[in-house]
Formats: sequence, structure tokens, C-alpha cells
Amino acid sequence: MGLVMKVPIIAINYKAYKTAFGEKAIQIAKSAEKISKEIGIEIIVIPPYTELRRIVEVVDIPVYAQHAEPVNLGAHTGYIPLPVLKEIGVKGTLLNHSEHRIKLDEIVKGVQIAKSHGLEVLICADTAEASAAVAAISPTAIAVEPPELIGTGIAVSKAKPELIINTVKAVREVNKEVIILTGAGITNAEDVEAAIKLGTAGVLVASAIMKAQNPEKVIREMAEAAYKTWK
Amino acid sequence: MGLVMKVPIIAINYKAYKTAFGEKAIQIAKSAEKISKEIGIEIIVIPPYTELRRIVEVVDIPVYAQHAEPVNLGAHTGYIPLPVLKEIGVKGTLLNHSEHRIKLDEIVKGVQIAKSHGLEVLICADTAEASAAVAAISPTAIAVEPPELIGTGIAVSKAKPELIINTVKAVREVNKEVIILTGAGITNAEDVEAAIKLGTAGVLVASAIMKAQNPEKVIREMAEAAYKTWK
Amino acid sequence: MGLVMKVPIIAINYKAYKTAFGEKAIQIAKSAEKISKEIGIEIIVIPPYTELRRIVEVVDIPVYAQHAEPVNLGAHTGYIPLPVLKEIGVKGTLLNHSEHRIKLDEIVKGVQIAKSHGLEVLICADTAEASAAVAAISPTAIAVEPPELIGTGIAVSKAKPELIINTVKAVREVNKEVIILTGAGITNAEDVEAAIKLGTAGVLVASAIMKAQNPEKVIREMAEAAYKTWK
Amino acid sequence: MGLVMKVPIIAINYKAYKTAFGEKAIQIAKSAEKISKEIGIEIIVIPPYTELRRIVEVVDIPVYAQHAEPVNLGAHTGYIPLPVLKEIGVKGTLLNHSEHRIKLDEIVKGVQIAKSHGLEVLICADTAEASAAVAAISPTAIAVEPPELIGTGIAVSKAKPELIINTVKAVREVNKEVIILTGAGITNAEDVEAAIKLGTAGVLVASAIMKAQNPEKVIREMAEAAYKTWK
Repeated sequence: MGLVMKVPIIAINYKAYKTAFGEKAIQIAKSAEKISKEIGIEIIVIPPYTELRRIVEVVDIPVYAQHAEPVNLGAHTGYIPLPVLKEIGVKGTLLNHSEHRIKLDEIVKGVQIAKSHGLEVLICADTAEASAAVAAISPTAIAVEPPELIGTGIAVSKAKPELIINTVKAVREVNKEVIILTGAGITNAEDVEAAIKLGTAGVLVASAIMKAQNPEKVIREMAEAAYKTWK
Repeated sequence: MGLVMKVPIIAINYKAYKTAFGEKAIQIAKSAEKISKEIGIEIIVIPPYTELRRIVEVVDIPVYAQHAEPVNLGAHTGYIPLPVLKEIGVKGTLLNHSEHRIKLDEIVKGVQIAKSHGLEVLICADTAEASAAVAAISPTAIAVEPPELIGTGIAVSKAKPELIINTVKAVREVNKEVIILTGAGITNAEDVEAAIKLGTAGVLVASAIMKAQNPEKVIREMAEAAYKTWK
Repeated sequence: MGLVMKVPIIAINYKAYKTAFGEKAIQIAKSAEKISKEIGIEIIVIPPYTELRRIVEVVDIPVYAQHAEPVNLGAHTGYIPLPVLKEIGVKGTLLNHSEHRIKLDEIVKGVQIAKSHGLEVLICADTAEASAAVAAISPTAIAVEPPELIGTGIAVSKAKPELIINTVKAVREVNKEVIILTGAGITNAEDVEAAIKLGTAGVLVASAIMKAQNPEKVIREMAEAAYKTWK
Repeated sequence: MGLVMKVPIIAINYKAYKTAFGEKAIQIAKSAEKISKEIGIEIIVIPPYTELRRIVEVVDIPVYAQHAEPVNLGAHTGYIPLPVLKEIGVKGTLLNHSEHRIKLDEIVKGVQIAKSHGLEVLICADTAEASAAVAAISPTAIAVEPPELIGTGIAVSKAKPELIINTVKAVREVNKEVIILTGAGITNAEDVEAAIKLGTAGVLVASAIMKAQNPEKVIREMAEAAYKTWK
């Protein structure tokens, strides 16, 4: 299926930081596109709803939404139904981020609706058990984000490598193919290297890029580390 | 305060209907702008998050969001913080729509954050008691939408005029100034006329316009009715 | 209406502390009953769902639930509908505690169902605005719990007396009769005295009693302070 | 592990029907106990929180809660923490019922806390995908309840046998041991027979017993069907 992500992957969650909106948001997307092409690895940008159309227009790398409702078009006020993403040129969506947890049946429905519209889904999970559960639903990818490390600046791949190793093992018992990313506390190139060495296909990163003095520099270092380690 | 809405008002909630996205969404906003200028009443358009920037760019009437989180910029994935609306030129937001109910303390925080950023807030409520409670928080406006009528095609102003009369009374005991709109089941010009005759300043309407064969025609009829009845 | 609380009031929220269950829970209720009768002020005990029947059987002071769903009997799994409380001899319920916030329309429905079954409702609110909003719904009582102080051991009545004064003022503009209690950080007799001097009818207290070495001693000191200050 | 349920199983969810409280609730538990002993199959009763202690006192069959929070004892108002169930003699809990859905990470945490306290967990799921996901978390048992059939009076085992067959297959690919029950629309002995023939270990049933003129008669018929079909 042509829509599966290429690996290795750096997925940049813009969250709702100051830099996630307006000109800065576009610059970061353009930096990501430039480096993706130079180095030859997949970089996915994940801006807020309000910025999706603009960013889809100006870059040619995958753009994801941060969330979308597992419902069809209709009477929904203040929510973006998943199928809308397809129409505006967005390639997929995050679901179940630790800042936006949803119910199990909503994850299942989200994966179903996404697949039926040719959209990719990257689902976040915080433990080996939750990751294995998500693997059973066969999304495009899973990002493992141990809650102990979210927002700490301590990369899970360094602080608790066994968490990643156990999660990869638990996921593979259920699903041989789903892409696994490492999230939570990814700060620098070294963390990206560790993430890949521990058996995952890349990282989901947010503040290390969005709050950087020079986001392009951080993206480049992480992309280079991903490229070298992956080979 | 310069940001208070002018009355009478027709507020168009795009919801997430098919016509709420893309070209059709822009056309409806342009129709609203044209008629607002011709007839001289306030028309507010309320598109989904993904369409806000585009519509703000092409029309010169108030654009509202359908919802926004009562939080400041920061680590929020898949949510739009209220202060973002100001930066992208949106004039205000709906809050607590029947399809997007929030907790009382979130309504309070939403009104506070909106006011501190010069944004308007239109809060939905379903009963006289809930409307009076909202009135005590002093938002810009309240839309009364009895749940018995939502989505029925039966305008509250016709089916249960006493609901509106009692709500206006209960609100005015608490707050003399807040703008009151009638919502739920507004279908045609006659409903708009009734809404204003019952003591409210206009309507919050969705499907009657968004699902119309000719949205501009419906907007015009409603706007004319609002203008005539108001005088 | 015979069901309105007598003032002054000490309302003891058991929460789900270790002492909230089993023999200890019963002892605390019996201590509350003894002191209520000795000193002649109202003491309300608010144990968890599982302890309600037992405590109603052994004491003759008002027993409240910590929460109840604003729904009627029926197909609800893992929830206690409000009308059930009446049948098991419980006199009322807390609603919208800061650990159990609900939506505005649920508060309204909760008050309506409670009144229709002759049950009292004590609604928590965290700001002057939220308290005024709740006052518009006319519950039996409101407990003001500024989030800045919850669980800090710093009584709102001492640390921020103006918060209580402003809240009482805001509530009285909307509702002359509703009982107002002070919550958040109530630690000792002095806090109870301050709460009453600032114009409220007593306190909603939890850990200072539930985690005390000698709960009866703390209840007695608070009750004596309430009695003296009220006179 | 001594705590695993014996099969076949009839699990009776009392919900919050009128018969779920007071004397009627006790009678149904006693009927379940009598029939369980006579016929020699496992019958689990699942009353509301307020009835748990009483029913644990009067019957000697497994009593489950309808829900419990995946948290430890502490400052939780209006919630019953899972570990409390152990202390009051309850053997386990339902989690994620269609009327009480929770987030994936809460299911994971619930299973972990339950296991660490020697409590059983019966998790509801509505699709083959959700059931497989739950299976990856290794609860005691899973109840499959297709939403198409809940409350219809049409047993899934009759109307859509392939739903059950596919679910059993999906679950077994992930977990060879977890007990699988059939839920949704179980009305009579025939449905119980079908549920077992399709490869599940029994049923989760509610209204067919709780709203019956003669609950004991229905329990007996279902228990006899379970016993015969299982052999």
C-alpha cells in the first residue's frame, strides 16, 4: 500500500507552541522539507489544525494532523472529522497523544475510518501493554512515549532503554509490520541514534525542535543521526 | 467596548457539514458578507478550524471559531488555545455548543482568557437555568438552544415560545446587558422574526443554511426578516 | 422546605482516603454525630458510595454522597443515579467537586433531579464567577474552593480572605438565600472561625479530619469554633 | 492462579435498573447462588457500588463491581479506587462497559492494579479489533458486545454469529488463554447455547434477568443451557 511511511522517520509534533503558528510554523516545515530531501529520510510535520492548509500548500513532505475525530462529516461543532484531512491534502494523523487520550473504541474507529480514506495513523501509547494493544489494531505506526519521561528532556532511549526493548518485543508478538517510533524526551541526535539502535524506526519529537533557537540545525542533526544509524 | 457585537445578529455555525470546507465554505462566507453590507445587519460566520485563516482573508465580517481551548499557548496536541484566534484574525468563538459541552470551570476560564485577549465569546446553553448561570459569567452573548428542538427543524421560537420568554427573563435577572440569541431548529425567515419578537437579538443557525440548495437565498431572507423585525 | 440544611455547617468529605472505608469510616461518622448533638451544630458526613448504606444505618445526622449521576434509574453501568440516594436514606449529594467536575448542563440537570426527589445538593465552584453561575441554578448550597489552595493546607479564609468576600458578594447579587460554605485548605478551628467571619455558613473539609491522628478531636475543635463564631 | 474464573460463566450486570437496589438486588444474588450450586456452573453477580457490601455478605458466589477507578486510595471524590474492592470482599470488576468507556491507558492501568491486588477484570469490547487489543493486555476475561445489538433484544450469537467467530479468532491470535464471553442482546437459554457453541465461555447478560418477571427462572434456564452446551 503506497501510503505506508518510509523509514527511518522523524515526526515533528508542533503542539500549540508559539512557533506552531504563523510564519515560524511555515519556516520549520520548509526546513524539514529541505533536510528531508538533502539527507534522504522521511520527515513528517504535524502542525495545528489552523495551519494545515497553508503548510500543505508550501511543502512537499508528509503533513499530519495532531488529532481528528473518528467520525464522518456532519453535525460536529468544534471538531475536525478524519475524512476532512484527505480533502485538504493532509496525509495522516496522530491519535491518542498523551495530551489527547481517547477511548479504545475511538482508536479502533479512527484506524478504520483513516484506512477507508487512505490516511495514515500514528498512534501514541505509553507502556508495552498499551503498545501491544494498539499493535493489534494495525495502525500505520505506533509512537511509544513512557509517561515517566514526557517533557523531562530525558530521552527514553537513554534513560530506560529496556522500556523500548520490551515494547518492541511486545508489539512484535502481536504485529510484525507496524512501524514503531520512540517518543518522549527526544532532545538531540544522540537520542535519535539510541532510538534506532533499540529497534525502532525513528522518533516523534516536539519541544526539542519547536523551542529551539535554531530549529533547522536540530532537525538536520537528528536527520543525519537517523540516516547514519539506520544504515 | 468596541468588540461587542452589533445587533440584530445572524450567526452561522458551519459545523462539519460537507459545505463547511473548501470552496463552498468560502462562498457561503462571501454571501454572508454581501448580504450583511446590503441589508446592514451583523452576520457572523463560524467555520471549522481548518478554514479559519482562508475565510478571515477573504471576508470582512466577523469570523468566529466553533470552539477553542481555555488554555494558553504551550504543550497541547490537537487543540487550539483561545489566544491563537486573536493572532489569526478571528474575532471570537462559540463555547459549550450542545455538540461540544465543557465543564463550568472551563466556561469561566474561557470567558476570562477571551476577554483578556479582546476576543468575543458566544456561549450556548440549553435551559433557562443554564442560560442564567452563563449570564452570571458575563460572556459577550448567549445562544439558547433547548435540546428538545436541536436538529428537529422545529424552531424553538415557534414551538415553545415560552422557553425563550422564560430564558430571557431568567437571564435579565442576572445580567442586563448580555446579548441573547435564539438557536435550535431555526429554519426560515419566520423563525428569525419570532426569535426577535420574543426578545432576543437574533439567531444561531446551522443546517438551514449549510444544507440549503441556495445558501445565499436563505441568508438573505433571514437577514431581511431580522432587519425588519428589529426595527 | 424541611430539607434545607441548618447552619452553621461542617461538611466532611471522606474522599477515598484509607479511613473512608470500613470501621474507621463508621467511627468518624459516629464521632460527627456525637459532637453534632453535644454542640448543636449541623455536621454532614460524605462517605464513598460503598459505605453509604452502612453509615446511614448507624448515624442520625445527614449523610451525603460524594457524587451521583444526573440521570434516572436504568441502563447505567458503574454509575449511581441521583434518585437512588433517596431510596437508601441519603439526604443529598456533592456535585462538581474539583476532583469530579461535570458539565454545566449536568449541574443543572442534577439540581432539577435532586429537587424533584427531595434531595439536597452542595455544589463546588472555584471562582467568584463560577460560584455566581451556580447560584443562578439555586442549589441547596455552594462550597467555594479556590484551586490555588486545594490540598495546600493553607485555608482560603486566611490566605486570601478577599476571595471569599468577593465570592459571597457575587453570589448574593444572584441569589439571596443559597447557603455558602468555604472549602479548600481548611485545617483547624481558626480556619473555621475565619470562614464564618467572612460571611459563609461553615466549611467543607476533608484531609484535616480524614488524615488526623484523632479525627474526633479535630471535628470537636472545628464544631466549637463554628458554634462560637456563628453566635 | 486461584482467582481465574471457572467456566462456563453467566455474568449478571445489574446496571442501575430498579431491581439493582435494595431487597430485589439481594434476591437476585441469592437466586444466582442457589442455581450456581445446584447446576454447578459459575454465576457472577455485578451490582451497583452501593449494594456491594450487602451482597458480598449474603452470598458465596463471585461478586464484581460494575466499574472502579484505576487509581490507588487517596483524594478522589465520587470514585471508587480499584484496591477498595479487595478490602470489601469483591472478587473483581467490569471495565470499559459500553455505558462506561475509558481510555486505553486507563484499561492498561486498571488491569495492572487489579492484578497487583488479586482482583479479576472483565473488560468489554465492541469489535474484533478492540477485543484483540484488550487481549494483548491480558485481563481475566473479555466480553464482546457488538454495539449493533446492545439493548436490542437480539442476541449477537444468533443475529451475527460471524461477529463472535471472527472475534474469537482475532483474540486467540493474540492471547490463547483469556476467557471470552458473549454480551449484547442475550435474551434466553437459546442465546446462551449459541454463545458457547460459537466458542465463547459464556455470557454477560443484563436486562433479560434484571427486568424479568421471574429472574430466578431466567437464570436457571440460562445456567442449564450453559451447563449442557459446555459439556
